Order: sequence, then structure tokens, then C-alpha cells
Amino acid sequence: MASTLAVVSGGLDSTVAAFVANERSGPVDFVLSVDYGQRHRKELEFSRLVAAQLGSEYIQLDLREVGNRLAASGTALLGGTEVPEGHYAEESMRSTVVPNRNMILMSVAAGVALSAGCDRITLGVHAGDHFIYDDCRPQFIELVEKTIRAGTGSELSVFAPFLERDKSYIVREGARLGVHMENTWSCYVGGETHCGKCGTCVERIEAFILAGVPDPTEYLDTSFAKERTGL
Amino acid sequence: MASTLAVVSGGLDSTVAAFVANERSGPVDFVLSVDYGQRHRKELEFSRLVAAQLGSEYIQLDLREVGNRLAASGTALLGGTEVPEGHYAEESMRSTVVPNRNMILMSVAAGVALSAGCDRITLGVHAGDHFIYDDCRPQFIELVEKTIRAGTGSELSVFAPFLERDKSYIVREGARLGVHMENTWSCYVGGETHCGKCGTCVERIEAFILAGVPDPTEYLDTSFAKERTGL
Repeated sequence: MASTLAVVSGGLDSTVAAFVANERSGPVDFVLSVDYGQRHRKELEFSRLVAAQLGSEYIQLDLREVGNRLAASGTALLGGTEVPEGHYAEESMRSTVVPNRNMILMSVAAGVALSAGCDRITLGVHAGDHFIYDDCRPQFIELVEKTIRAGTGSELSVFAPFLERDKSYIVREGARLGVHMENTWSCYVGGETHCGKCGTCVERIEAFILAGVPDPTEYLDTSFAKERTGL
Repeated sequence: MASTLAVVSGGLDSTVAAFVANERSGPVDFVLSVDYGQRHRKELEFSRLVAAQLGSEYIQLDLREVGNRLAASGTALLGGTEVPEGHYAEESMRSTVVPNRNMILMSVAAGVALSAGCDRITLGVHAGDHFIYDDCRPQFIELVEKTIRAGTGSELSVFAPFLERDKSYIVREGARLGVHMENTWSCYVGGETHCGKCGTCVERIEAFILAGVPDPTEYLDTSFAKERTGL
């Protein structure tokens, strides 16, 4: 049985991925979350809730000094510009790219996992991420796994069950597995409640509607998203 | 002309690699060093001196929380066991492996470099590292470069001029380039002066002798190393 460390941002995708791993091959030993100074640091509180529901040990790592340097890229997620409104797959979402973020996350996760005796890490990347984020594409994830193995002489595997799935599938899986999806956070703006207008909010609203699953999320506004997605 | 971020530990190899980059393609813009709680944290003071000699901006990043987790592996470099004495290429040196260290370092370096507008990172890994450290071998370094490019859509290159060279070559290059090699730190023990008995000290002593370059380093003891290497 695999011994697992789940990389969980506190969002929907990585959370449900951890629950899928839990169902398929037993308890998730660790839930790892990283504070890189993200505008929506609020998501970290939700990672802790995910770990509690899974019964996993929660690890939060401080990489804010790294984040400070990545902010020089001007990325909206580290405060460089306003978070863009619109659909997640729109060109304007490029301003939310954080240079090399997933490689940093996965490298750290692999080192921590191997040090703790785990042989698997999980990741929530999904097909809807591929438009904008180079570091969410299947060929990248495969390369990361290969590189970790080469660098550590281990057989660590990267479990990313949604690589070819869309977000409505994730919502259905979450509902099926009894995930407390109200205890996840997507919004890039990171206010009191989900804004409903940023890329991840629009995608989240759309996903629940397409999945036919009641959305437990409180949004400031859903009309923008419904108009933008035609739903 | 390449815009360069040099990953410098404060040791001899990464320092001379930065100077080679400086000679071949112009000023090194940044020198990056990482505090991961290494036993020989003293090396960080030396990175700062390297940056000063190169006229580069010095960046030091705090990854101690990550290091704390990697310590669970039992690695000697994070205090798990005593630092072994002997030659660098001996089997006993495996206790100095830090799981996935170089992938973490290079991922962070790539993100910081790209965010600052650099298109190259430098690294001091050399052929003498290959016996023990999976994450210093050519195929690993190649994979890292490929993975960074795939994940960032960039053409960032990894400059590792000593991948197929031994440490005596590095010493000769250091001498030729006028590197203040007395301002570098190798010893894993991290005491007041170089111990002379740990793997990196033995390798350092051997390299200066083989290179025929006067060794400016102060060691507690050199007889052990000379006996072990037969020099």
C-alpha cells in the first residue's frame, strides 16, 4: 500500500485528488500546504480543514521569502497587478502565472515525502488548467516525476488523477466521496467570501452547475459568471 | 548576452562555476544562496563574499522549514548523525545525502531567475559528486533543465561547467580566474576552521595538491586526508 503525502492548496481540485488517493490506496499520511505569500493565503486555513477531514498530519511550510522574489515577475497572485475577472481559460489569466511554481511545490513535496518515508505525492492539476499554465500539463508532470526519480534514486510516484478531466468531474467526485466542499477555497482575490468574478471563481461556479451538484459556496456575485459561461 | 543567476553554496565548486560564467558571458547579476538549516550554515557567510567579489546582488532565501522536514531522513547534513570522516567518494558519505536537495534548489533558483529576467542559472556540480549524489549526475541536470523549460515555457539554461571535470580542475580554474578561494567554505562540520577529515575537506585538500596550487585554507588537521589519499 502506498504511503502518501498530498499536496493540497486548500482549493477544490487538490482536495478531491487527496480524497481519491485515500479511497484508492488507503490513508493519506500527510497533507502539505505552502505559504508563498499568495494573495489568497486564506486558502491555507482550508488545507488544515482538509487534513482534519482526512485524518492526516498537516504540514505547512513557509516559503514566503521565495514568494517575495517570484513577485518580481509581476504576477497578480503575488500582488503585482489586480486579479483579472473572466473565464479561467481566457488569455488575460496569464497574469496569474507564478514562474515555476509547480516545480518548486513538487520538488519540496517530494523531498519532504521521501524524508518521511512516503512513496507517493498527489496533485490536483486538471485539464482546465492546461490552457494557461505550462506547469499543469501532462508532459510537465511526467517530466517532474522522472526528474525526482533520477535525482533521488527512488520510485516516488506522482498521482494526478484529474490530468485529463475537467472541473465538473472533480465536483462530481467530491460529491460522491463526501468531501466537505464548502471547506475549500478557490478565489484568487482572497476576500471574506468568494468574489465570483475571478478566473477560479467563474470556473468553480461553472463546474458545480455542469456537474449538477448543489454549490455550497457563498459568492459575492454569481450573475457575472453565469453570463460569461452562458449557463 | 546571457543574464545570469548563480547558485552559490559558498563552497569552491559553485563559486568557481560562477566566475567561469562571468568570464564567458558577462556579469553575474545575482548570487543565490539558500539557508536550509544545514549544519555548515557558516558557508552562507562565504556566499556573500563571493557575491561581493563578483559585484553581484546577493540573495539569501530562508528554507529552514523545508530543511526541518528533510531532517526526518536522518541526513548527517541536517544533524541526523555525525558527519562521516573519509574520502568523499566512499560509501559512508551516503549519510550526507539530503533528499531531493538539488531539485529544490534548482527549482527555486529557476523561478527567482525568471522572475528577475535572467535566462541562465549556474551550478557547481562536478564529476567527483557522481559516486554518491544522484542529483549531481549529468542526466539529472539535463532533466531538470528540460522540466524547467516545459513548466515555464522559457528557454532558461543550466550552466554547469564542471559536470565532467574533477575538483583539481576547478581549483586550477579558480587560480587562473583570481578567485579568492580562501573565501570559500567546504567543511560539512561547520566549525571554526575546516576540520580536514570530513568528505568535502578530504576532497578539498586532495584537489589543491593534485592541482599544484597553494592551498590557502586553514585546516585543523591535514595528515588524515593525506594518508587517506596517499598524497
